[in-house]
Amino acid sequence: MHTARLPIIRHMTNTTPTHPAATPRVLIIGCGFGGLEAAKALRGKPVAITLIDRTNHHLFQPLLYQVATAGLSAPAIAAPIRNLFRKQPNLTTLLGNVVSIDAQAKQVHLDDDTALPYDHLIVAAGATHSYFGHDEWAQHAPGLKTLHDAFDIRRRILMAFEAAEKEPDPAKRKAWLTFSIIGAGPTGVEMAGTLAEIARHTLPGEFRNIDPAGAQVLLIEGGPRVLQAMPESLSQRALEQLNRLGVEVRLNSQVTHIDADGLTVKSVVSPDKDCSSSYQINSKCVVWAAGVAASPLGAHIARATACTTDRAGRVKVQPDLSIPGYPSIQVIGDLAAATSHRPGQAPTSVPGVSPAAKQMGQHAANNLLRQIKGQTTLPFVYKDYGNLATIGRNAAVVDLAAPPLGQLRFSGYFAWLFWLFAHVYFLIGFRNRFVVLLDWASAYWSFARYARVVVGDEAGSKKLP
Amino acid sequence: MHTARLPIIRHMTNTTPTHPAATPRVLIIGCGFGGLEAAKALRGKPVAITLIDRTNHHLFQPLLYQVATAGLSAPAIAAPIRNLFRKQPNLTTLLGNVVSIDAQAKQVHLDDDTALPYDHLIVAAGATHSYFGHDEWAQHAPGLKTLHDAFDIRRRILMAFEAAEKEPDPAKRKAWLTFSIIGAGPTGVEMAGTLAEIARHTLPGEFRNIDPAGAQVLLIEGGPRVLQAMPESLSQRALEQLNRLGVEVRLNSQVTHIDADGLTVKSVVSPDKDCSSSYQINSKCVVWAAGVAASPLGAHIARATACTTDRAGRVKVQPDLSIPGYPSIQVIGDLAAATSHRPGQAPTSVPGVSPAAKQMGQHAANNLLRQIKGQTTLPFVYKDYGNLATIGRNAAVVDLAAPPLGQLRFSGYFAWLFWLFAHVYFLIGFRNRFVVLLDWASAYWSFARYARVVVGDEAGSKKLP
Repeated sequence: MHTARLPIIRHMTNTTPTHPAATPRVLIIGCGFGGLEAAKALRGKPVAITLIDRTNHHLFQPLLYQVATAGLSAPAIAAPIRNLFRKQPNLTTLLGNVVSIDAQAKQVHLDDDTALPYDHLIVAAGATHSYFGHDEWAQHAPGLKTLHDAFDIRRRILMAFEAAEKEPDPAKRKAWLTFSIIGAGPTGVEMAGTLAEIARHTLPGEFRNIDPAGAQVLLIEGGPRVLQAMPESLSQRALEQLNRLGVEVRLNSQVTHIDADGLTVKSVVSPDKDCSSSYQINSKCVVWAAGVAASPLGAHIARATACTTDRAGRVKVQPDLSIPGYPSIQVIGDLAAATSHRPGQAPTSVPGVSPAAKQMGQHAANNLLRQIKGQTTLPFVYKDYGNLATIGRNAAVVDLAAPPLGQLRFSGYFAWLFWLFAHVYFLIGFRNRFVVLLDWASAYWSFARYARVVVGDEAGSKKLP
Repeated sequence: MHTARLPIIRHMTNTTPTHPAATPRVLIIGCGFGGLEAAKALRGKPVAITLIDRTNHHLFQPLLYQVATAGLSAPAIAAPIRNLFRKQPNLTTLLGNVVSIDAQAKQVHLDDDTALPYDHLIVAAGATHSYFGHDEWAQHAPGLKTLHDAFDIRRRILMAFEAAEKEPDPAKRKAWLTFSIIGAGPTGVEMAGTLAEIARHTLPGEFRNIDPAGAQVLLIEGGPRVLQAMPESLSQRALEQLNRLGVEVRLNSQVTHIDADGLTVKSVVSPDKDCSSSYQINSKCVVWAAGVAASPLGAHIARATACTTDRAGRVKVQPDLSIPGYPSIQVIGDLAAATSHRPGQAPTSVPGVSPAAKQMGQHAANNLLRQIKGQTTLPFVYKDYGNLATIGRNAAVVDLAAPPLGQLRFSGYFAWLFWLFAHVYFLIGFRNRFVVLLDWASAYWSFARYARVVVGDEAGSKKLP
């Protein structure tokens, strides 16, 4: 290793004598679905991997909304990264925050001023929420990407009911009991359905001054239908199931303002009308599930390599997931604007979903090994197995690719069971699978949600959100 | 109810018509073991109870050290108060922070300026840590009383190993790998034993630059033995078990200074020696398990009623747990300096343990009902069933009162099993019991600790503790 100037790496060479000097150094940034899969695919290969993440855990993001809605505890969906890789001796875990990439010197810089050299770099830094230029909305309408976000939203939801219980003014009480979810993608739909279930089934009987079942759950969507990645028939099924659960869905409704008291919505049903269709919703608990933007690392990479990014800040990668002119840098997952190249077909863009991130992780690892062997890299081909989304109790929609049969589409109870077992299957660790199943079973039969714990000094209405 | 000036109570009368105007209003401050038990004992009785707590959950504090050491998730030992009392219609839960008590007007004031009138008041506000006048130590050596504390300590422990992994300087690395627990009461002993287990059994294999098993776990105690509430023979057993687990116990050692780099300890073995026996321990992770002080509400009550408090700030109560001259106010649990009055025996002081708090809660509820019926109150009698403490894997000490046999004392594996089932038995809720057993079983066989999740933006050594 050529590491003379780098204390952290020099230190590592002292204790990892298993990698001879010629072992290629692989740096993976981010341990989401993409980074995790790339690291696992390199197990037992002749590379020295450093896996950097800002947190100490891999997060199973598809179930994060359940932590936010008090159905699961954080450890049930978060696995310590070190523990996941304890039996992979060619991998070093590093808790760190990457602030820049020097593509010429082949180094990555952390915020504690250490520099990490690499021979191959896989960037899987993911995405964060985007407020479409209105960052001031973030304080009033948190998004859901990290465990920290989930705890924040859990606190806001539970504290809104507490504040309503204390509030004598009926108008103010109603504002505390109006929950607005912005964006009807999978996360927004799941949040809205679960919130309605909490209000109607979990909390009644526990309050003395309010009726939680009277809470209003609004799902506000700018487009003409919910779950736009789904076929139209399933969007319609999802809408019906949302209505049945008590969610009030407002389609073609754009949010133009958010503050501590609520939001302003512009109805876009008739584009030729004037602005008189704007109206105000008094709502003290607002959740942002609308926009997604790539990690700021995308812009860093673009500056460092003169590559381009798309509107969402995602790095436009080559067919083999590398950056034009920099074959040693691959970008995968939600940070990549990637295309799928099925032989004989026109390239298609790859969606920002976890199966795509996992497939890109495997592909990047494979291409990296091909480069080491002196072979040419292969273009990425995305295998789309389908799409599923849950809405709430007994309610989900499934759109599966079943090649001999074509598309398999179903909704309702069996779709919900399918969603449930698919998610448990993909959870990491036997214990977590077991505990999640147990929690779901107990929640299903009792309607209780056990993780209703709010931590900190939240008492006193002054400190309420 | 005479509530004209109190919006919150007026509001409550609107929606709780089940209590006629003459129903006595009972206010219970705090939902720890004492407050919870008092509230439960008043179920179905002709009183209108308001139960105030600063958090939304009852915490099973005996297992809090397991949350701090990543063995359990927070919801496993915290039950939402509202949910516990959903089937007790004579009880209203209020999330609030009591700042003062007006014993003349029979009102309690919250920090949001609401006033709550009462006919009977039970104060069960508990205790917090005391740094013996050195509050500046708190930032370097957190105590363990709330879930917030537990998360803070969990973060410090896990981040110390992360910082050590990154640190090239051997002396600094050793300071990160030196863990100091101050105070060898039950919490200190449990923390030290579990930390040693984590370092020796959970983490090895996960790091590449450090050997976690080389971490030093120090248990520093001012007195001459560990677990001073236990008989001397069991203290000796506990000490042996701690040593076997790899904990370095320093008895007769007083902490005289704590800062970000470590602590100064004064050996008090020979009281006639000069101060030259002081020495410095470089330790980046320090946990405070030494001093306990009553909630500041104790001082408020003393001011409001001219009663006295003891050295720890606990309110000196009458034999019936009421305050001299104020029969409508009872103080219970860790906030009370109470005495036990077994007929024919001299009064003994009641220890600050959870069974005592529970018994006081039941007793206060009973005396309150007697007052309502015009009967005289009864003096409190503490039934001591014994004492148990765990040390770590297969290690515990038990001192049981088994009246026909006298005292039953045992230690080691069977004491540990006894401790384990006793704690599971007293946990609230079937689900929690089951999940805790499951977590313990999986931790026992695999040595893994699943709740190793640290939340927030912890990456980057600048932000390390």
